[in-house]
Amino acid sequence: MICVLTGGTGGAKFVDGLRQVMPAEEITLVVNTGDDLLWWGLYVSPDIDSITYVLSGMLSRERGWGVKGDTFLCLQAMGQLGEPTWFHTGDRDLAVHLLRSRLLAEGKTLSEATSIVCGKLGVKACILPMSNSRVETRVDTPVGELSFEEYFVQRWYQDPVNAVRFAGASDAEAAPGVIDAIVSADAVLIAPSNPVTSIGPILAVPGIREALHGARGKIAAVSPIVGSAPVAGPAGILMAAQGLPCSIAGVAQAYEDFLDILVCDTRDARAADALRKSGLRVQCTQTIMRSSDDKAALARNVLSLVAANVVSDQPQARTASDQP
Amino acid sequence: MICVLTGGTGGAKFVDGLRQVMPAEEITLVVNTGDDLLWWGLYVSPDIDSITYVLSGMLSRERGWGVKGDTFLCLQAMGQLGEPTWFHTGDRDLAVHLLRSRLLAEGKTLSEATSIVCGKLGVKACILPMSNSRVETRVDTPVGELSFEEYFVQRWYQDPVNAVRFAGASDAEAAPGVIDAIVSADAVLIAPSNPVTSIGPILAVPGIREALHGARGKIAAVSPIVGSAPVAGPAGILMAAQGLPCSIAGVAQAYEDFLDILVCDTRDARAADALRKSGLRVQCTQTIMRSSDDKAALARNVLSLVAANVVSDQPQARTASDQP
Repeated sequence: MICVLTGGTGGAKFVDGLRQVMPAEEITLVVNTGDDLLWWGLYVSPDIDSITYVLSGMLSRERGWGVKGDTFLCLQAMGQLGEPTWFHTGDRDLAVHLLRSRLLAEGKTLSEATSIVCGKLGVKACILPMSNSRVETRVDTPVGELSFEEYFVQRWYQDPVNAVRFAGASDAEAAPGVIDAIVSADAVLIAPSNPVTSIGPILAVPGIREALHGARGKIAAVSPIVGSAPVAGPAGILMAAQGLPCSIAGVAQAYEDFLDILVCDTRDARAADALRKSGLRVQCTQTIMRSSDDKAALARNVLSLVAANVVSDQPQARTASDQP
Repeated sequence: MICVLTGGTGGAKFVDGLRQVMPAEEITLVVNTGDDLLWWGLYVSPDIDSITYVLSGMLSRERGWGVKGDTFLCLQAMGQLGEPTWFHTGDRDLAVHLLRSRLLAEGKTLSEATSIVCGKLGVKACILPMSNSRVETRVDTPVGELSFEEYFVQRWYQDPVNAVRFAGASDAEAAPGVIDAIVSADAVLIAPSNPVTSIGPILAVPGIREALHGARGKIAAVSPIVGSAPVAGPAGILMAAQGLPCSIAGVAQAYEDFLDILVCDTRDARAADALRKSGLRVQCTQTIMRSSDDKAALARNVLSLVAANVVSDQPQARTASDQP
């Protein structure tokens, strides 16, 4: 069993690789819910949705979110009704939001609702929200405090960021199964997600950091930063706001209290050397995931680094030594 | 000002005629809400929706319900999630259900939500739900008691009907404006809707029948029955269940305590003669609405019968004497 902490589009791509190289039944995903929002009165959980769509084969790979081939006629009609349209929910995508919202209204927890949706879509992996309590990532900017989706989607992460906080985190509890999945996994993988707003909310839930400290398996993180820039999105700005350098050193620092292995891009070989001097195990490999093969190769490499025996098919890992 | 009591597809067609021959601002519609249902957790009000779509020019005339040109991808996706799909909500149509549901969840009344939706869609007529209280049409059948939409849409009105009741009606109040609209109108028109399940729920709301008794204007009903069969739908079965003959005499009986004029089809000339002997004013005209022109002609004829001066353009009414 492996446990993956994930969020965002980088996380979804990494999970898309993992599902190609190991049985989905052996993967437990602990997913960021700090971006969750009420949209048109429906409970939307962007990161849980993306992971659910990846694992059911429904994800639009072109967009990296939502359902492939989806249409947006309800969105258009909502616009005609004067409702906000900056968060793009497709017509097929709406079905998941409708079902989840109804289940929550009936008193189900987010864990239960997620499990029901996954069951209906034939998802074999175990998707766990980080918490069933509401933890909201709030981004403090000169225009005021924004929800993550307001900052990221509505305003295209153009605002300077003063600070990030996780409202509700101190009172939150890890969702059922989360602590056990982390502690008992053969390996814990931290996806190449934004360390501040995708992994940060997970780590802010009381008990999760402690579970990582007590994890039985090795803990490896894939850096979402290559050189001095994120592969995509606002990770650099958000890391700076948290006092972290935008580099693999910053990623290492975000996870320093529990990280065993940092997986970074081959282009960071020099920075990796410097980091190794601090005692961290750092491995360089190709981390940019453009194709399906890239995703599978990265997943295979990461798995072979942490525990060769969890790879189900013949590993043909390209580790640092194979790289040019 | 005229006031129209309406529900169902016959009502929507009649209103489609009225809007062609008089200013929408001068029409107040009191609409059946006995068919309202929670669908996928959303509050759907089929008759209010149809009238709203007619008056905003959005109604699918092919289907007689829903939005023209709509798609059903969310419905399809809900089916894949194992959710019920027998009630057909289109992708564009969903926008109205989403907005209304959110407004109701925020504490707005159905009247307020309806008014907001109408405002957004540029509807100039005043659409009033019969009540802001929940009144549910329940159809007792050998398979059990069904909601109207279960009976009508899900089961294609194939079940024998033992009885019909309007759950919640005795505790309901007419929505704001309903009583005044009926009492003060220059004419009250009862659309060619099912007398039992479209007009019946309206009449079951305490105060509405009394308002009809005290109405200042003439009250005219258009018969949804031609000969011994309804123009469409289960009106015949439902009338029989209420002890009413399926004929224009049955329609007259349903409204006998307040009706001034019954408008029936030219094919019912003989039955009309018999009814007139009871003292009711009965007028025959063409009531089948196939084309847009048919709808306009019927509306014009009915208006000219009740009060010539409420017809905005030159009335060219074809009354009984013009018919072959």
